[in-house]
Amino acid sequence: MKPLKIIKIGGNIIDDTSRLLSFLKDFSAISGAKILIHGGGKIASELGSKMGITANMHEGRRITDEATLDLVTMVYAGLINKNVVAKLQAQNCNAMGFSGADGNLITATRRPAKEVDYGLVGDVAISGVNTKVISGLLNLELIPVFSPITHDGKGQLYNTNADTIASVLAMALSEMFEVELIYCFDKKGVLEDVNNDDTLIKEINTRNYNSLKESGAIADGMLPKLETAFQALNHHVKAVRIMQAEEVANSNAGTLIVK
Amino acid sequence: MKPLKIIKIGGNIIDDTSRLLSFLKDFSAISGAKILIHGGGKIASELGSKMGITANMHEGRRITDEATLDLVTMVYAGLINKNVVAKLQAQNCNAMGFSGADGNLITATRRPAKEVDYGLVGDVAISGVNTKVISGLLNLELIPVFSPITHDGKGQLYNTNADTIASVLAMALSEMFEVELIYCFDKKGVLEDVNNDDTLIKEINTRNYNSLKESGAIADGMLPKLETAFQALNHHVKAVRIMQAEEVANSNAGTLIVK
Repeated sequence: MKPLKIIKIGGNIIDDTSRLLSFLKDFSAISGAKILIHGGGKIASELGSKMGITANMHEGRRITDEATLDLVTMVYAGLINKNVVAKLQAQNCNAMGFSGADGNLITATRRPAKEVDYGLVGDVAISGVNTKVISGLLNLELIPVFSPITHDGKGQLYNTNADTIASVLAMALSEMFEVELIYCFDKKGVLEDVNNDDTLIKEINTRNYNSLKESGAIADGMLPKLETAFQALNHHVKAVRIMQAEEVANSNAGTLIVK
Repeated sequence: MKPLKIIKIGGNIIDDTSRLLSFLKDFSAISGAKILIHGGGKIASELGSKMGITANMHEGRRITDEATLDLVTMVYAGLINKNVVAKLQAQNCNAMGFSGADGNLITATRRPAKEVDYGLVGDVAISGVNTKVISGLLNLELIPVFSPITHDGKGQLYNTNADTIASVLAMALSEMFEVELIYCFDKKGVLEDVNNDDTLIKEINTRNYNSLKESGAIADGMLPKLETAFQALNHHVKAVRIMQAEEVANSNAGTLIVK
């Protein structure tokens, strides 16, 4: 099987123009098949307040009403996605930008309302990924760039978590590619001491994972990320890597997570 | 050569939700290869004024400064394009939305400043159309949906006239397809009496065109449209049709323009 790198960047990079440009240059230099997934960024909230749409948050998560969905569709799938694509094109990287609605690439189901109704938020699953069309695009030597907007196939767009899109794409495409899933962060990777870049853990696997948890080296926000990583590995993703965005061109940087 | 229909709709349809939905349903029912190009609409100006961006017009044409380019990129390539795509998907039409930057599909050059500097506006030419990738997408049975945003290949997006995109796509793709270029209007087509739908001119060709001009049947705003149509025909487009959006599924409706 051909190798495929699936790389996710978040708002921390999107919001910093010089960091973003530098990242896109490095991303362009990566050889072989690759897919970029980008998150949102502060610009949606800034534009929203200009337009009189106030961010409605619950425990750090945005509640997506219709006005907010329009806003994130404009900003994520329009402004950010097309500018990222244009900047990649300037680096001779034949990027093509998508929402999940385009080509029916990613269908989602509305997140069920429990204690909180998150509104027009889509949950994605492996079965919702259109591997046939995505592999067709990769065969045309195109570089897909996904914004975190999906659809239900019945005309409704959804706001969707970009980390989850990345992992679901990675799992689904593992049936045809040897996939490495890369999450770009501000830190060098998973650190034993979160304030000390010299304490990078080079590899996490099923053998040392539990002891790292017990020692407290892995805790808090990193735990769900690693659970997601192991879930991807259990669905035939070959490797997951957590690394600093600035090191994306270095295929050995960061923390490698393997079975 | 395989037939290909290239269909353009403007703001008059985009701005009218029920007319748009009805059009998209009819468009989905058209068999064979097809491409949709959509213009902007009032929503960009409405959102712009909410965001404090005032439309700067010169003789009915928008001057595109950086803030306006961001606005139209969001609204045209994001909000409108993704909603159109999602609505087509709901009709089992495998639409995929694009700006010209995506897949380097349409490159443009900045319009030179003469008496007026239109700002970040791109002019497109046949040579700027990436026929190889567009035909690759059509071979994957995808239905391209273009927003009127292009790029220069060096990282700059441009606001671009949707009518011109449609004609340039038609001319460029005529090397591989038997292209019919369709402009959707409010009226039934070219009318001898603009206020009377019963005076539809069924066919305009190089033989009756001059006499229609001399009799005054074709005048004013219709003249440049017909010049564009004959230019397309001179570049191997098989036929141009001007018709009412409501009749798009009827392949014999409107005014047929042929050599």
